[in-house]
Amino acid sequence: MKSLSPAHLEDFFTFLRFASISTEPKEKETCRQCAEWLAERLKRTGLQTEVCPTAGHPIVLARNQHRPDRKTVMIYGHYDVQPVDPLELWRTPPFEPHLANGIVTARGASDNKGQIFAHILGVEKALQETGDLPVNLILFIEGEEESGSAHLGEFLQKNRKSLACDVIVISDSEMVGPNQPAFTYGLRGIAAMEVSLTGPATDLHSGNFGGAVVNPVTALARLVATLHDASGRVAVEGFYNRVRPMQAWERAAWGKLGLDEKHFLKITQAPALGGEEGFTPIERIWARPTAEVNGLWGGYQGAGTKTVLPKEAHAKLTFRLVPDQQPKEILNLVETHFRKFYPPAVRLNVQHGHSGEPYLVDPHTPFGQAAQRALHKAFGVQPALTREGGSIPIVADFKSILGVDTLLLGLALTDCAAHAPNETFPLENMEAGVRMNRALLEELAK
Amino acid sequence: MKSLSPAHLEDFFTFLRFASISTEPKEKETCRQCAEWLAERLKRTGLQTEVCPTAGHPIVLARNQHRPDRKTVMIYGHYDVQPVDPLELWRTPPFEPHLANGIVTARGASDNKGQIFAHILGVEKALQETGDLPVNLILFIEGEEESGSAHLGEFLQKNRKSLACDVIVISDSEMVGPNQPAFTYGLRGIAAMEVSLTGPATDLHSGNFGGAVVNPVTALARLVATLHDASGRVAVEGFYNRVRPMQAWERAAWGKLGLDEKHFLKITQAPALGGEEGFTPIERIWARPTAEVNGLWGGYQGAGTKTVLPKEAHAKLTFRLVPDQQPKEILNLVETHFRKFYPPAVRLNVQHGHSGEPYLVDPHTPFGQAAQRALHKAFGVQPALTREGGSIPIVADFKSILGVDTLLLGLALTDCAAHAPNETFPLENMEAGVRMNRALLEELAK
Repeated sequence: MKSLSPAHLEDFFTFLRFASISTEPKEKETCRQCAEWLAERLKRTGLQTEVCPTAGHPIVLARNQHRPDRKTVMIYGHYDVQPVDPLELWRTPPFEPHLANGIVTARGASDNKGQIFAHILGVEKALQETGDLPVNLILFIEGEEESGSAHLGEFLQKNRKSLACDVIVISDSEMVGPNQPAFTYGLRGIAAMEVSLTGPATDLHSGNFGGAVVNPVTALARLVATLHDASGRVAVEGFYNRVRPMQAWERAAWGKLGLDEKHFLKITQAPALGGEEGFTPIERIWARPTAEVNGLWGGYQGAGTKTVLPKEAHAKLTFRLVPDQQPKEILNLVETHFRKFYPPAVRLNVQHGHSGEPYLVDPHTPFGQAAQRALHKAFGVQPALTREGGSIPIVADFKSILGVDTLLLGLALTDCAAHAPNETFPLENMEAGVRMNRALLEELAK
Repeated sequence: MKSLSPAHLEDFFTFLRFASISTEPKEKETCRQCAEWLAERLKRTGLQTEVCPTAGHPIVLARNQHRPDRKTVMIYGHYDVQPVDPLELWRTPPFEPHLANGIVTARGASDNKGQIFAHILGVEKALQETGDLPVNLILFIEGEEESGSAHLGEFLQKNRKSLACDVIVISDSEMVGPNQPAFTYGLRGIAAMEVSLTGPATDLHSGNFGGAVVNPVTALARLVATLHDASGRVAVEGFYNRVRPMQAWERAAWGKLGLDEKHFLKITQAPALGGEEGFTPIERIWARPTAEVNGLWGGYQGAGTKTVLPKEAHAKLTFRLVPDQQPKEILNLVETHFRKFYPPAVRLNVQHGHSGEPYLVDPHTPFGQAAQRALHKAFGVQPALTREGGSIPIVADFKSILGVDTLLLGLALTDCAAHAPNETFPLENMEAGVRMNRALLEELAK
């Protein structure tokens, strides 16, 4: 604990205490307060800061004094977090940070408050020690990443000029292991959909109607079951049409990272793995698309029995996409699939949700190499070249709107439980993040 | 409104206000209070009453002065009710009875408080007008019908002597239409099961693990989808082995009742019907077994998106059974089916729930004919001979433990929304029930 003071920890905990769940309408004010607090904290580092309203949650921006003779680097992060259910599985309250054995447990600890806070502390340290940074910095911290960054594209469009930069840095991905940093050169995209089936006008007595009236929950289960074939492949026609095959060097390199079946069985404690035949677990996660049910419900969920034939059933789905799948095209293909397979005894409603394109960048550009040198400097080992199964839709927006590549330098561990109960972040990684920020800005300035 | 006074209505409403949901642990005290109130109300009719404790909710018993030279008739009913979810679909609060156009809306209005209260008022009226009843009466009103009558068998065993009777009457079934009473000679049985699948130890980030870790919700949907084949038949091996075929006269008689596809589409407002090929809707409901999903859930159900790979998924199932299917055998067959089809990447937990055997009685016995005459007298038309798709498990217990047949004389309408939001009971049917009770006791006494 060399560079972290109790005051730093206190600030980090304050940051974590905001229940800034962007997808939850009732936390709108909490998100605003979190943004205000963040701007205030950034002002203390010596940066000029502003809280920029959007149609959703505000964006926090901070800059040093820019000079035309320096490169401009944007560091992106987000202050919003995932919902916390199932709440009963948290060992400590999700918005009451818990420190034990150098590890902080709280919603957002890794994703993304811990990682962006490491950058903030790194910038603060450099400013305190040297009075300046080696680059023009734009800190860009949004509040809607976990709900699809709905208003970011518009914001980038409107502020293209003031946000112009040479490269973007994001720490919102994972290391390979505690001492194995990673330079992440690819991300899966995402496309969200909500599907509802409704049958009778009201819930019915399952004795008086069961057998003749089609049960929407059964119908939805059958419909969801059509999403995959027996070999684990997504059975939606055309789903794989644009999928770019992995390159031989990728499969070879990934095979050496130790992210094998044993690793995933250990960290998930699932009784066995599954998925698409013909691919290793890490290939399935990093380079193959999925059709995932994030939630499904219908009928009675209380204690005991309720002999009801429910009137409706619902499913929340997301599809993780790989280059060169197009989110909107995928949603249309899936909707076509559902419209083909749903039975006439129910009504089908399909809502297309947020989406983000997959991303793939060449790790061998000058900026990519600078990032790898910075990781090497901060961690003392050569970073691995990885992709990530998650989605940071904004990365595709940065490329298409600002025309800039993004460097993904994750500080989270694979067992950090992002999006799950008991999310963690080791303070050791925050320290490494502080070092990495310093090294990175120096390397990028070259 | 000839025989119902405001005081009767007030008492009925008081009865309906008890949230006596037997399956809901937090309503245990409410159930007890409902039983106490009922006993007090029965005492006022001039009957000797007692509240008999069981390991579950108490049973209310009431008798007139028995004489050895008269037949003994037991009238069975239940004071417990179904849960009320989804509460938001109720147009008026479920335990605040709402009277409009002669129709009472409340949970339990038809099932079974309204129907048993009609019998109580019938008995009270006869006692007031003639000072006696033509039979020895046992009113038997339990509090666990909606949760499977778990403690009734034991109670009947222990009290076989004091409960000895010649015939049992239950009004807990449906008429064919508003002016078409029914003598119900068959019921489906029921067998309940809860199935859970668990995969990873915690909810996971669907980006970081999706594709390699099997999603328990998807797995459960696929498992539930194996319950039926494409023709609507239950696909569990051996499920139909003991199913007794319908008799030709039944299919012919039922075909004339007007309970056709058009009827069911109208009252359910489903876009189409479905079910087992080769049978009419009413045959599917009255004489064919089902596999029904009463509830299914897993993952995120809140607003927006949560990109989670859930750790578990659950389903509540009931199977409606017909003669001569055996509930325990069916549960074992279904469990065997699930154990055969669930994937190795999840753990399967199967809980067998309550069950009740199907019932079929000859409608042409002397008691059966007496019941049909009473219905004719009360309604002015010849009753239809029907079965019912619902289950009254206690009927099979009465037969096996007390050795007595049960006469089912329903007063509920097919659109009464039993087990559903906005359950109704017309006061007209309560009036008819009062008349029927009087006629029935007279006919059975002959």
